[in-house]
Amino acid sequence: MYSRPDGRALDQTRPISFKRGFANAPGRVIASAGDTVVLCAASVADEVPEWRKGTADAPAKGWLTAEYRMLPSSVARRKPRQDRPDGRATEIQRLIGRSLRAVFDPEKLGPRTIYLDCDVLQADGGTRTLAISGAFVALVETLNAIRDQLPDPSAYPLRDSVSAISVGLVQETPILDLCYVEDSSADVDMNVVATGEGKFVEIQGTAERSPFDDERLARFLALAKKGCAEIASLQREALADDWPF
Amino acid sequence: MYSRPDGRALDQTRPISFKRGFANAPGRVIASAGDTVVLCAASVADEVPEWRKGTADAPAKGWLTAEYRMLPSSVARRKPRQDRPDGRATEIQRLIGRSLRAVFDPEKLGPRTIYLDCDVLQADGGTRTLAISGAFVALVETLNAIRDQLPDPSAYPLRDSVSAISVGLVQETPILDLCYVEDSSADVDMNVVATGEGKFVEIQGTAERSPFDDERLARFLALAKKGCAEIASLQREALADDWPF
Amino acid sequence: MYSRPDGRALDQTRPISFKRGFANAPGRVIASAGDTVVLCAASVADEVPEWRKGTADAPAKGWLTAEYRMLPSSVARRKPRQDRPDGRATEIQRLIGRSLRAVFDPEKLGPRTIYLDCDVLQADGGTRTLAISGAFVALVETLNAIRDQLPDPSAYPLRDSVSAISVGLVQETPILDLCYVEDSSADVDMNVVATGEGKFVEIQGTAERSPFDDERLARFLALAKKGCAEIASLQREALADDWPF
Amino acid sequence: MYSRPDGRALDQTRPISFKRGFANAPGRVIASAGDTVVLCAASVADEVPEWRKGTADAPAKGWLTAEYRMLPSSVARRKPRQDRPDGRATEIQRLIGRSLRAVFDPEKLGPRTIYLDCDVLQADGGTRTLAISGAFVALVETLNAIRDQLPDPSAYPLRDSVSAISVGLVQETPILDLCYVEDSSADVDMNVVATGEGKFVEIQGTAERSPFDDERLARFLALAKKGCAEIASLQREALADDWPF
Amino acid sequence: MYSRPDGRALDQTRPISFKRGFANAPGRVIASAGDTVVLCAASVADEVPEWRKGTADAPAKGWLTAEYRMLPSSVARRKPRQDRPDGRATEIQRLIGRSLRAVFDPEKLGPRTIYLDCDVLQADGGTRTLAISGAFVALVETLNAIRDQLPDPSAYPLRDSVSAISVGLVQETPILDLCYVEDSSADVDMNVVATGEGKFVEIQGTAERSPFDDERLARFLALAKKGCAEIASLQREALADDWPF
Amino acid sequence: MYSRPDGRALDQTRPISFKRGFANAPGRVIASAGDTVVLCAASVADEVPEWRKGTADAPAKGWLTAEYRMLPSSVARRKPRQDRPDGRATEIQRLIGRSLRAVFDPEKLGPRTIYLDCDVLQADGGTRTLAISGAFVALVETLNAIRDQLPDPSAYPLRDSVSAISVGLVQETPILDLCYVEDSSADVDMNVVATGEGKFVEIQGTAERSPFDDERLARFLALAKKGCAEIASLQREALADDWPF
Repeated sequence: MYSRPDGRALDQTRPISFKRGFANAPGRVIASAGDTVVLCAASVADEVPEWRKGTADAPAKGWLTAEYRMLPSSVARRKPRQDRPDGRATEIQRLIGRSLRAVFDPEKLGPRTIYLDCDVLQADGGTRTLAISGAFVALVETLNAIRDQLPDPSAYPLRDSVSAISVGLVQETPILDLCYVEDSSADVDMNVVATGEGKFVEIQGTAERSPFDDERLARFLALAKKGCAEIASLQREALADDWPF
Repeated sequence: MYSRPDGRALDQTRPISFKRGFANAPGRVIASAGDTVVLCAASVADEVPEWRKGTADAPAKGWLTAEYRMLPSSVARRKPRQDRPDGRATEIQRLIGRSLRAVFDPEKLGPRTIYLDCDVLQADGGTRTLAISGAFVALVETLNAIRDQLPDPSAYPLRDSVSAISVGLVQETPILDLCYVEDSSADVDMNVVATGEGKFVEIQGTAERSPFDDERLARFLALAKKGCAEIASLQREALADDWPF
Repeated sequence: MYSRPDGRALDQTRPISFKRGFANAPGRVIASAGDTVVLCAASVADEVPEWRKGTADAPAKGWLTAEYRMLPSSVARRKPRQDRPDGRATEIQRLIGRSLRAVFDPEKLGPRTIYLDCDVLQADGGTRTLAISGAFVALVETLNAIRDQLPDPSAYPLRDSVSAISVGLVQETPILDLCYVEDSSADVDMNVVATGEGKFVEIQGTAERSPFDDERLARFLALAKKGCAEIASLQREALADDWPF
Repeated sequence: MYSRPDGRALDQTRPISFKRGFANAPGRVIASAGDTVVLCAASVADEVPEWRKGTADAPAKGWLTAEYRMLPSSVARRKPRQDRPDGRATEIQRLIGRSLRAVFDPEKLGPRTIYLDCDVLQADGGTRTLAISGAFVALVETLNAIRDQLPDPSAYPLRDSVSAISVGLVQETPILDLCYVEDSSADVDMNVVATGEGKFVEIQGTAERSPFDDERLARFLALAKKGCAEIASLQREALADDWPF
Repeated sequence: MYSRPDGRALDQTRPISFKRGFANAPGRVIASAGDTVVLCAASVADEVPEWRKGTADAPAKGWLTAEYRMLPSSVARRKPRQDRPDGRATEIQRLIGRSLRAVFDPEKLGPRTIYLDCDVLQADGGTRTLAISGAFVALVETLNAIRDQLPDPSAYPLRDSVSAISVGLVQETPILDLCYVEDSSADVDMNVVATGEGKFVEIQGTAERSPFDDERLARFLALAKKGCAEIASLQREALADDWPF
Repeated sequence: MYSRPDGRALDQTRPISFKRGFANAPGRVIASAGDTVVLCAASVADEVPEWRKGTADAPAKGWLTAEYRMLPSSVARRKPRQDRPDGRATEIQRLIGRSLRAVFDPEKLGPRTIYLDCDVLQADGGTRTLAISGAFVALVETLNAIRDQLPDPSAYPLRDSVSAISVGLVQETPILDLCYVEDSSADVDMNVVATGEGKFVEIQGTAERSPFDDERLARFLALAKKGCAEIASLQREALADDWPF
């Protein structure tokens, strides 16, 4: 039977934490999952893209977008800086933005843009899902900080929390929360984003080497739901009295 | 109940075809699904990227990569050309490449690179899944054309066919093969790639507006499997005696 | 004496056609000359570049510009995509734009921009001249479609048709409408654009290897005028009742 | 009748000069035509582009290429620097390169690349033709300086001289060597490059506003040949004992 | 008299620290000075730039280069990511590289390149000087880690330590180690880099508003030497038994 | 003792001149120092960057910026053109801009931008300091030419002149105004910018190989002040009756 390099159970996540208070500014969170560390920051700008601008009849809606990058020193073999996000980073930052927008009400934000910057300080697998989970915490901090300036302070711009985790198939064994060495040898790689209520926001599954059937898919999704639920609890704990729902 | 703009049944695909023989060259296929038209071309170069190069002990493996673009005139409101693929095109061409690589044996290709160019001539929804289905036909044509030059002509570099289709949720109704107006108003958007054998290669589901539960997911996947199977038949028909398996 | 690879007479063009109706939209034309195929599209945008904007006293003039690209799969040896048009494409798209602007009245278009997109689907020599001839047909379709919205519907924004053809010197023999293999070995290469009335709009002649004298120039120009006149007839035939003059 | 702003006869060029000896280095020439000033420099690099590299059987051929730019301060209204040559500069530098290559024998240069840098210090019309004429002088200086290192010092890499001039149609009057104000209002604009022997190397004629017939073309070409011949004399005079033929 | 916003004496630095051990990898240091935080990382690649490659007679020399960037979230008003380092970042990363190279013996490194990545996590003035001081600590960690692989392990590639600090003139008062609000209003801004031995490596002084005389310069340099010496002590303390001299 | 390649005394500058009147336009100066030649041009645009725009209460301030480039033919081994200024050019053009802004009153210019274009026609060391000295002369010419259009013609936008020179350490000997061969072998390289009154505007000293102490620094600065004073006299002489102070 497959034995994990760090001794975890097959359905066990790494130690996950969301440290708040970096830089004495709201909206900066150091998210960690094992040796993976991502600085998640939510910034507000009082402007919206041209195509979101309102009209006399329709007020401008807010916008929320994400950027993801890895620092050159975040991986063992230095990753050269690039002019623009490479294909992988483009894919990931689009996923992060979509995931948070799925629970976001742009009308309630007013004519503002929220930027979610997810910068990977150290990478050991699972950076994209940790970035989503951490970005949620940073986003809540930032929304709370501007709550009085919202069009209607009693109408919170988020409907639910979101958290994310990876599942995969290694040595024909479905496992939860892959670290880098597991990710490198996985035959199926799946990232799942779910709401606090337990519904699916995103499912991205890739059969790198072995196409999979319905039964296996069901096992992947069950693992993912367990992981997402655990992370949702950690998010609630980290936000404590700032929990908005 | 939801009634489709073109009168199709909820689980019905548009008319789909794969026209071969364009440009008197192998590996050029005009794929159509309703008003969506994609020129899918598979080209071979006798070289591999630096990181695929072999060593004294390990012979070089082949590589397969894809590029996706929309012609400016493919949409009603002209789409300006861009310096590089935008975020959406980047995401799509990575999906196309991964999907075909899932059934591809690079060792059997030898030290060559296959480029799959998917250029959208006309866009009416479902360009990415049509590109995958058409690219498979173009790829087979091209592999057949170089079969004698393969390291072992009896070892075909593909293990199975792949086909792809979109499903989605419109007005709370799961439907198959969305056209553009349906896609624009869908609350869930999912693209599924499957093998000829009916296993999943890629599942990419996004809850644009309404997170979904397991039951709904099951319905989406059932529709997608039906669509993929139909397209697999059309691919086999189009390739006729050139079918490689 | 020089014998052409496809058996044509020295002053004979390849079979040329302008297929209309692609994509169920006006202004999309598939132009073919032998094995060369160019998708010519004319799109309208209701805006003009900053420097064309009008003033209180002078109404804004329209603008017309062209873009030319070759699909990667349009040539036998795949042509990699480039960030921007390369030198050759830049030169060609400027030629296309100038050629159509020579018969165009921007005041009669009103504050609009016309984009002529010429995308080469298959290349076998003569792509730039075929692009000009096909772009004229697409342009007429598009102008006809917006005729009611012109500042003065009775004042048509074109003064005459334009058509174009190549001539060259191969084995000391002047010939008309070179295909790729002829073009590759030509000692003189000349592209000529003429009006329906038979006047010159552009002459671009290059002595790749053998500088030429007045006598030879006269022969090149006579061939070109014959070719341009034939194409003008085909354009009129293709447009039939839509012919605007 | 049309009267020129600087009082010149219709077939008269501006004062033209080629000053040698700038920078105490061979191959740097300050070319002037009236108020137009271009620094023409020919540099040699002991390498050729990848695609010119030789094989065991065929020795590497030389290469010759040109670059053209305008300094920001060369025009009255400062021209911002650009990342890359704009469309006009691209077209011009390709013309310069082709013109000089038409009289150039790459085999006789050996495995070297010649760069012709034409930087416009002051612009008052006719920069591209002056750049060609000046580049020829710089090229001879540079070839003479490396003559001893050529594969066969007795085989000079140039077959003839080249010179260039503009002609145009202003107020229905064909004129020679247009200055900027004439160029701005010309209805036809033509640039002609000829060999010392009087044959055509390049003809680039554009009917900006009035398509032209054979008769007018004949007048343009006669003016251009006169101008090119005069410049050829000035080139010979400037090179004096360094004249290579 | 000028009173500092954080109550410091005029010649007092902020609390400065160099935290080692981030990411369980050698060569990653979190450098802090008050609210300024920079992640300094030194990575080794087993290759050198083309122009450093050795010959049969001369062995290849090593190379050392630096990159500097600010995270978008490092400043109160989010700083958009840019394609390339902007002018300020270019200037700073060149300064960091030169400063460390001044005490570096490339021959003793062998054919390797060291990359110093200085990524600002939080900015409150003095990021460039803190980056230099922190990069020195990271560099020592990394050199120690590869000591056994050096051409001669007994020949250490550094001759001395380097540390850096800013001085400036605020309200006609020379002060040490400016924070952001001081830096914004400074009339003179100077960055000084010194060796552990107390000699100058770099002096970069700019009179933003008030040109200064010799007397004032002497005061700036005295302050800077005091600050550099204090930081040198902190570096030695942080490295403890790893101090290489 | 160190003997200079061109026989100069250790504290002697090369022959320096500022030729005015190029291009029959104000604000174009050919600055020379020995074999180094820089074309310095000051152009005015009637607009300011977005961030300098005024408000109802505060009128817009002017802006002054500089660009520096070397022509490909300015050095013996041709320097390829680059998309953007490289690191060195970025650093230099920022230095030029800061140096001139140190004596410039943007309020007195009104809502205009001055561009200082410094294009090196020939490089033999000291291009950045010569560019600063020449740019001052071009700037005065241009300001004088628009003096009547200034907000207050009696309030000149400059407070003093600026001039610049390099000093360095070669063979343990401090010297003034290094030519290229000296610059290449210098152990310390320092550029100093001073006002006509003799105060420091910029000091940029780099110990390429040998960190230096206070005594040596004093010697460098004494040499630099002597050189700057001499150049200030030449600037005054060149401007003659146009001297603005």
